[in-house]
Amino acid sequence: MLWVKEKAPPSPAERAATKGWAVNLDQKASLLSGKDMWTTEPVDGLPPAVLGDGPHGVRRQAEDADHLGIHDSLPATCFPPAVAVGSSWDPAVAGRLAAAVAAEARALGVHVVLGPGMNIKRSPLCGRNFEYYSEDPLLTGVLATAHVRALQAGGAGASVKHFAANNQETDRMRVSAEVDERTLREIYLPAFERVVKQARPATVMAAYNKVNGVPASRHPWLLTTLLREEWGFDGVVVSDWGAVDDRVAALKAGLDLEMPGNPGNDARIARAVRDGSLEEATVDRAVARVRTMVGQWRAERGDFDADAHHALARELAAECAVLLKNDGGVLPIGPRVRTVAVVGPFATKPRFQGGGSSHVNPTRVDVPLEEIRKLAGDRIVTTDPAGADLAIVFAGLADADESEGYDRTTIELPAEQVRLIRATAAAARRTVVVLSNGGVVSLEGWHDDVDAVMEGWLLGQAGGGAVADLLFGVTAPSGRLAETIPLRLQDTACHLNFPGEQGVVRYGEGVMVGYRFHETVERPVRYPFGHGLTYTGFAVSGLAVEVTGDDTARVRLTVTNTGDRHGKHVVQLYVATSAGPVRRPARELRAFTKVALDPGASTTVTLDLDARAFAYWDVLEGRWLVAPGAYTVQIGENASTIVAEETVELAGEVLAKELTLDSSVGEWFAHPAVGPELMRRLAAGTTEERHTGAAERAGLLRMVESLPLRQFLGFLPTPLPEGTLTELMALSRRGGRT
Amino acid sequence: MLWVKEKAPPSPAERAATKGWAVNLDQKASLLSGKDMWTTEPVDGLPPAVLGDGPHGVRRQAEDADHLGIHDSLPATCFPPAVAVGSSWDPAVAGRLAAAVAAEARALGVHVVLGPGMNIKRSPLCGRNFEYYSEDPLLTGVLATAHVRALQAGGAGASVKHFAANNQETDRMRVSAEVDERTLREIYLPAFERVVKQARPATVMAAYNKVNGVPASRHPWLLTTLLREEWGFDGVVVSDWGAVDDRVAALKAGLDLEMPGNPGNDARIARAVRDGSLEEATVDRAVARVRTMVGQWRAERGDFDADAHHALARELAAECAVLLKNDGGVLPIGPRVRTVAVVGPFATKPRFQGGGSSHVNPTRVDVPLEEIRKLAGDRIVTTDPAGADLAIVFAGLADADESEGYDRTTIELPAEQVRLIRATAAAARRTVVVLSNGGVVSLEGWHDDVDAVMEGWLLGQAGGGAVADLLFGVTAPSGRLAETIPLRLQDTACHLNFPGEQGVVRYGEGVMVGYRFHETVERPVRYPFGHGLTYTGFAVSGLAVEVTGDDTARVRLTVTNTGDRHGKHVVQLYVATSAGPVRRPARELRAFTKVALDPGASTTVTLDLDARAFAYWDVLEGRWLVAPGAYTVQIGENASTIVAEETVELAGEVLAKELTLDSSVGEWFAHPAVGPELMRRLAAGTTEERHTGAAERAGLLRMVESLPLRQFLGFLPTPLPEGTLTELMALSRRGGRT
Repeated sequence: MLWVKEKAPPSPAERAATKGWAVNLDQKASLLSGKDMWTTEPVDGLPPAVLGDGPHGVRRQAEDADHLGIHDSLPATCFPPAVAVGSSWDPAVAGRLAAAVAAEARALGVHVVLGPGMNIKRSPLCGRNFEYYSEDPLLTGVLATAHVRALQAGGAGASVKHFAANNQETDRMRVSAEVDERTLREIYLPAFERVVKQARPATVMAAYNKVNGVPASRHPWLLTTLLREEWGFDGVVVSDWGAVDDRVAALKAGLDLEMPGNPGNDARIARAVRDGSLEEATVDRAVARVRTMVGQWRAERGDFDADAHHALARELAAECAVLLKNDGGVLPIGPRVRTVAVVGPFATKPRFQGGGSSHVNPTRVDVPLEEIRKLAGDRIVTTDPAGADLAIVFAGLADADESEGYDRTTIELPAEQVRLIRATAAAARRTVVVLSNGGVVSLEGWHDDVDAVMEGWLLGQAGGGAVADLLFGVTAPSGRLAETIPLRLQDTACHLNFPGEQGVVRYGEGVMVGYRFHETVERPVRYPFGHGLTYTGFAVSGLAVEVTGDDTARVRLTVTNTGDRHGKHVVQLYVATSAGPVRRPARELRAFTKVALDPGASTTVTLDLDARAFAYWDVLEGRWLVAPGAYTVQIGENASTIVAEETVELAGEVLAKELTLDSSVGEWFAHPAVGPELMRRLAAGTTEERHTGAAERAGLLRMVESLPLRQFLGFLPTPLPEGTLTELMALSRRGGRT
Repeated sequence: MLWVKEKAPPSPAERAATKGWAVNLDQKASLLSGKDMWTTEPVDGLPPAVLGDGPHGVRRQAEDADHLGIHDSLPATCFPPAVAVGSSWDPAVAGRLAAAVAAEARALGVHVVLGPGMNIKRSPLCGRNFEYYSEDPLLTGVLATAHVRALQAGGAGASVKHFAANNQETDRMRVSAEVDERTLREIYLPAFERVVKQARPATVMAAYNKVNGVPASRHPWLLTTLLREEWGFDGVVVSDWGAVDDRVAALKAGLDLEMPGNPGNDARIARAVRDGSLEEATVDRAVARVRTMVGQWRAERGDFDADAHHALARELAAECAVLLKNDGGVLPIGPRVRTVAVVGPFATKPRFQGGGSSHVNPTRVDVPLEEIRKLAGDRIVTTDPAGADLAIVFAGLADADESEGYDRTTIELPAEQVRLIRATAAAARRTVVVLSNGGVVSLEGWHDDVDAVMEGWLLGQAGGGAVADLLFGVTAPSGRLAETIPLRLQDTACHLNFPGEQGVVRYGEGVMVGYRFHETVERPVRYPFGHGLTYTGFAVSGLAVEVTGDDTARVRLTVTNTGDRHGKHVVQLYVATSAGPVRRPARELRAFTKVALDPGASTTVTLDLDARAFAYWDVLEGRWLVAPGAYTVQIGENASTIVAEETVELAGEVLAKELTLDSSVGEWFAHPAVGPELMRRLAAGTTEERHTGAAERAGLLRMVESLPLRQFLGFLPTPLPEGTLTELMALSRRGGRT
């Protein structure tokens, strides 16, 4: 029996994982970090498992490459990065992508794929935003859950990352994200909570940064209290590469596997057990989890269908691009357009993925200019706008402008891109801009000069083909913004607190991230969260909200394609309320679905809202609470434009407020049973009160309403009769029942 | 010898205070809270001292009044409250006011006057803003210092309040102000620091609220480390009335005197000494301080010159009103205006002070309508605007709209006031609005309909006369805004974080308070901090900035009265910089002075800037630092409009950055001596490096620049030769000297 020092009995999974496996302490410890950069240690017959980068495509490093090897990985399909998938608003896109990644991972010998990235986009400046889905936790959580389910159904383990509050690259290894619990619970954790509970990822990757002063890689509350005890996670917690600064503390906090390999730390673990400062049971639990993981995923080297995957990448990319503007229906390109000018450096050298650990060595790359030529029919395609009916400008950010590892300091497009757009718009009859960028860019300074803008984000290796499909109407755009495009960087919620200073970043905006901020302070933006156009029209009707009991609701509505083309529409359901003792955002996305409809067709959509859709995190109670009050269910064309709404009253939870001497005068008087009684007894006791007018009394009362009753008693001219307060506190404990 | 248990020897003042005074422990303890609401305990021949409210006038409660007695105090002159004095931008106004208050305090038997209030106006909603000077710490500190000096020179002790971070009324007894140290040091503490160091107030009043979780009344860092040890305060720390929740902890933390009287707590102190949980020396030190204070201030009952003080109140009030708008020079009222209509409830029932503990029972009250009649000469003065050449609307907030004890929830004027203004503007040929309000009100919805707006704030009992003087040009307006008037409440920095929730208020905006925020994010306001018009014109010329060594500077400029009337001008000097590792506000007020000039006259103003004018608080170093770099000295017409500027380079302090394994890769490579050396040695070690282009290498380097070197070492393909890092770290310790 290996588990002699264990206090908690091993779980069935742990028992199975260690059954009949006799290894010594040093061997066990060696399993708790890699053999090298990417592989777990083979111990006593346990095969090594390979972990590989790959949120949107596998980065399997060639055996002879350098350690980081960003540019030397084996060819794999580069699917659209998360920034694009976020804009699809479609879990099917995330799922189909992940299934293909799983197939490639197995073929390339990768057991656990490091992804998806699912941090919330707190600032448009974060250099790694291209690897993240959205500024909204629900959208992020739904997409990540679909990704993980499909990836693991396809036989590859997932590693959801970066847990948690890893929302910037600046000083990412040391900075402390100072963020209150309500904000963590409502904004930065729900997507992780959903994916852990609903998709059971093989691993969770602990982030580099500190959270409220403690490194995420050795944060007991994050890695054990929350993740395992509260959410029920039973997989492996793996470090981000090089994140561990105190191996024994990290293990105790719940970090099972350190990567890359670190024999020195393995030895530290064994030494700590021997000197009694670490329980061997803690080692054993981590070993069992790693062993379970290693045994679970089977990667057999082989081939994958690169052609089919490229075609899939093209199909998915077309779901992700967002048509921001389309004045006069300039898109899709119609038969009257006889000459098309295609300009801009990205027309021939497309930018389709971001820099850093997620960088894929693509199997092939679609070149936009060539793809446009293929679909242009007998039109003339030139690279000169000087007499073109239509000019298409491929603009955006270059590789060096954004990457893992550092944040941007501006959201402006490079000046030469802006000059190109403006010059083209001045020369051509009509101008379409296709943008390639991983993080939000400003559209100011040129937006009003052009006829159409398609935000392509980074669309993966087949993005060129997908854009051509969209431009010519082979496919209709259906993407919606997963993040706000502001008018100015200074208008964003965290502007003055990003990326922090002197080792600390204060999340001063709290839950007011992205559209939650802009909508709450009514600050105009260029394009709101959820915005996106297509080539047909949609109408919403018949909104009905039924409270189904226990603060849940069922929402029904009908969506009709009112235009003359097939198209897809994203139904966005927001909830707006001011109920409860906390400041609520103006509205929050609580459900969504994407529907496809033929011209003239209708469908009825049903969306179920659980209590969490109405709840806030109460820091005093330490749990989710639905406050009694009015809740407005809103159907939004986007986060700013509400097209239908209905208000319902929810019973919620009335906290049985027990009065104490520390309760404020205001709370005493507001108590439905105790307040009037206290007023009566106070008035009876003094002559002074009788001389004071009611208005003056109310004014005086208001002035002292924040005083704890304990202090207020000292101000009373006549003491209350003995026992009065004891009696009234008892009354409050009984909930007012006499 | 009384002080047998004392460890630190008593100071000379303490020694003098206790000399020959033999009292027992219970007597000593009884001196540490009041005898009653307002009086210290007379102990063994020590007379009682009276503490009384009175930032802008004495509120000496009549002996037979109720305990709080807000409306029953002895008649005293109600001078302009701090909100008005703030707008004077003139320490002479604060000083002359305080000297008169001191005279009245002595006459009314008050030894220590509870004031001035000097908290920073974080939000326009704070119900007690009328008792505070400004959103800027320098302006607050200079005015408070002048007040305390004059008050104490006049024979009454001061009690500066509320220490510290007491910036709201909501939940004021319990709320925890969560505020980082840089923000405390740069925004919320400097005014207190200045007044303590420069004016040595008799007492500092500890606030009700918590600061970062600890009640201010028992906050060892605030009351002892900072106040006494760092700033050298040797007076009495007194509690705000009813603030003490744990008397022994409060005493240990540095709170000497609890008010009001609390015999139960006195007994707790004595018991704690007897059971050994409190050192008697701690009691003795507090007793000595209280005894010193009691002995220091002499209040002899008597008379004061109410007529002279009323005239003074009128003169001072005229310095405080701010002329916001004066289209077409409608003011001062000229000879062509034959009929003047005076409307609005405050024309006959003026609002001139705020509600709560500072409420003065005035000796008399000027009625605006009557004062206007007196100055109108042969003009017709009516109360009907229906054919008037000029209508004057007295509008503002009523008593119940704002007070100590609760915060506002809106900055809108009451709807009926807006209706009155608009109706008057529609009826009269020209319209002037005179506002009476303690906190900022929005001018939107009517501002553009009227010709002139005078923000009178609350001007004290002679405000009616002062306004009449200003309207008719007997005096020229010279007030400047001490706080921003925003366009919308939502545009203010702390909007979403005020007044906090569930017991906590997060100071999420950090140092970006008031104009610091608006200027930094370039958000338009209705009227900026520092704005104010007068009846003549001024020009600034000849700005010269001389760096005088050790990061100090002398600034000279010439101010000329270019108009045709006598007038006063406020020279506002701001410093703008982006030097250092912290986010600096766009500009900060660093010096100011008010000059009076006859038409055509000039004066040269010299303003000295010490190093603090350029410094930021470095939380890692734990001290003020001037960072090397460019600093622009700006002369502003207000915080938004700069009329002259000059940039100087300051040597500042170059921190001798010593590299460690926890320093980031970026820090290693940025080191002037170590960086190039490390690069050379790394390049020499690998063949791979030679295969990688410089651009790619730079990109890779940028990606890992935030890695601590310790972790980066694990990614190197070839380990560095033994001793390399030790050698390089030694090089960095030597400041790069080889």
